[in-house]
Amino acid sequence: MAQFESKIRTIEWMDDCSRMVDQTKFPYEFNYIDIKTGDDMFDAIKTMIVRGAPAIGIAGAHGVVLYAQELQKKNLSFDEFKKELLKKSDYIVTSRPTAVNLYWAVEKQKDIIKNCTSDIETLIDELKINGKKLELEDIEINKKIGDYGAMVVPKGATILTHCNAGALATVGYGTALGVVRSAYANDPTIQVFADETRPRQQGARITTLELVMDGIPVTLITDGMCSYFMKKGMIDMVCVGADRIAANGDAANKIGTYTVAIAAKYHNIPFYVAAPLSTIDTSIKTGDEIVIEERSHDEVTTINGKRICADGVNIINPGFDVTPHELITGIITEKGILKPDYKESIAKVFE
Amino acid sequence: MAQFESKIRTIEWMDDCSRMVDQTKFPYEFNYIDIKTGDDMFDAIKTMIVRGAPAIGIAGAHGVVLYAQELQKKNLSFDEFKKELLKKSDYIVTSRPTAVNLYWAVEKQKDIIKNCTSDIETLIDELKINGKKLELEDIEINKKIGDYGAMVVPKGATILTHCNAGALATVGYGTALGVVRSAYANDPTIQVFADETRPRQQGARITTLELVMDGIPVTLITDGMCSYFMKKGMIDMVCVGADRIAANGDAANKIGTYTVAIAAKYHNIPFYVAAPLSTIDTSIKTGDEIVIEERSHDEVTTINGKRICADGVNIINPGFDVTPHELITGIITEKGILKPDYKESIAKVFE
Repeated sequence: MAQFESKIRTIEWMDDCSRMVDQTKFPYEFNYIDIKTGDDMFDAIKTMIVRGAPAIGIAGAHGVVLYAQELQKKNLSFDEFKKELLKKSDYIVTSRPTAVNLYWAVEKQKDIIKNCTSDIETLIDELKINGKKLELEDIEINKKIGDYGAMVVPKGATILTHCNAGALATVGYGTALGVVRSAYANDPTIQVFADETRPRQQGARITTLELVMDGIPVTLITDGMCSYFMKKGMIDMVCVGADRIAANGDAANKIGTYTVAIAAKYHNIPFYVAAPLSTIDTSIKTGDEIVIEERSHDEVTTINGKRICADGVNIINPGFDVTPHELITGIITEKGILKPDYKESIAKVFE
Repeated sequence: MAQFESKIRTIEWMDDCSRMVDQTKFPYEFNYIDIKTGDDMFDAIKTMIVRGAPAIGIAGAHGVVLYAQELQKKNLSFDEFKKELLKKSDYIVTSRPTAVNLYWAVEKQKDIIKNCTSDIETLIDELKINGKKLELEDIEINKKIGDYGAMVVPKGATILTHCNAGALATVGYGTALGVVRSAYANDPTIQVFADETRPRQQGARITTLELVMDGIPVTLITDGMCSYFMKKGMIDMVCVGADRIAANGDAANKIGTYTVAIAAKYHNIPFYVAAPLSTIDTSIKTGDEIVIEERSHDEVTTINGKRICADGVNIINPGFDVTPHELITGIITEKGILKPDYKESIAKVFE
């Protein structure tokens, strides 16, 4: 199978800071920013300088290292240091409540903190090494997801995606767009339709940018258009990412995903979720238990600093929705494609 | 039944010009503009200074009068005058191909032109009188649509609408929002959820504005959110307008409507189309025959003058989609609510 080389590396640990692509200026600027403190990392996650569930996980792991570097200057005992660092680790998880990967990656760092018995310097080295390991693992995992997913992409397919589950949502390569990259490497007649993804327009701002950068043909459509193109036979497959997947296969993803899934079902178009196993939260039985983040009303009322609606209007702005498992054709993971019954296939993959 | 008094009059003939609300500056400015020539009316329709199928119909009828006033200055024989005016009438219909009301209203004027046997001055008077008649009829028709529709609005309902089928899409009162107004007059616990309606955001810019002006509670949501709120049980009914309805009940409306209809079906929520009988085009058997206007790519790529996506992206921008009759619970007209089988109920209402 041919391999795709992406130009994009979203987040990377550099000696004593975390370097990331600043995703708030897309599509106008493509700049890197060095995050040097834990609080700055908390803000970077919260304000979506870094976004995408897998990338946020790595950002959280880096955040723990940054807090450790700060606490090191405080002359604490090793036990005090560990206690404080565990507190900071729990704090950084609160920056984006929906993404389970953040919790998952920070837990990995917390395990190292809890198990370390030597000294502060050694612990910090171990945390850095683990952060780096998680980074490289993420790229490897995505390539596996991509390669598994490519097997179910029809020849010459047009793949519809929602939001951005791409290289820029991960350390590199991408989950849903990893599937696109792996498929494209072997079939350059593959193309993508990208939903704009209001309110924050990650599809327009981020997915179009990363696909154009990597030379993969992409058509931008508004969120309401998906059914129109499905009916015309112009969409062969839907592939999206996920922020959290329950033990029964219900998948939380960017608001609007559920609508696309219903439209795909209506037109008998396969709907795949591509996500690393770290996205699956077996502690929750169904999607009903997933807490949906309510985000700022400005995201709906204002675009590019300009208000788009009348004063006096009410707003509700859920950041995510849950696509029920019965609408999902398969969940593409680094260990293969999970199929219904998901309760069984998910339990089995975690055995 | 209590009557609702709306503050909004969208278009009105004034002695020798057509006065309309300029809908291109919403939601920042609410201004009137006087259209004084036929070509200016053509542009006003094309650039959507006036929009909404019923309002465009009246604009077309006024446009014929404006062309007549111009031709009057040209010293033509009565026969030449009529011939030239019929040409101009056919031309003005090409300004928005999807709206059948435009064709319908201009045909009404053409009948007067063809049947007039007196002189130019008398003919122009007749065209003015007929334009005025169509205006007042439109408001009366909408009030009837509203009153019929209100009968199927559940007590305390939240009604989801897409685009703007309101007072600002008609001469006044509105079709889908006419249903809202009539329902609200009798039950002030009624409220509206308005889809933003990308790309042109008529829901955000126009529907929120006219409902706030008339004091009816409205919540703005992005287009992808509808299913989320449906699943939560927060939407009791969908009511939208239409630009053209085929003899079998298939209804063309603003792009994105079809997606909402599929979501409503999935959640067993009633989906109504509110439209005057002039919107029904019995000359076309099904929605497949409806020509879908492809609009400027800038509408998708640019918001408030600022580009929202990468350079190098492809765009397709269909202005409308067709909701198949099987997704429509009822078509609310001035002669009552048409129910399936639409082929029969539509044929019957035109008997």
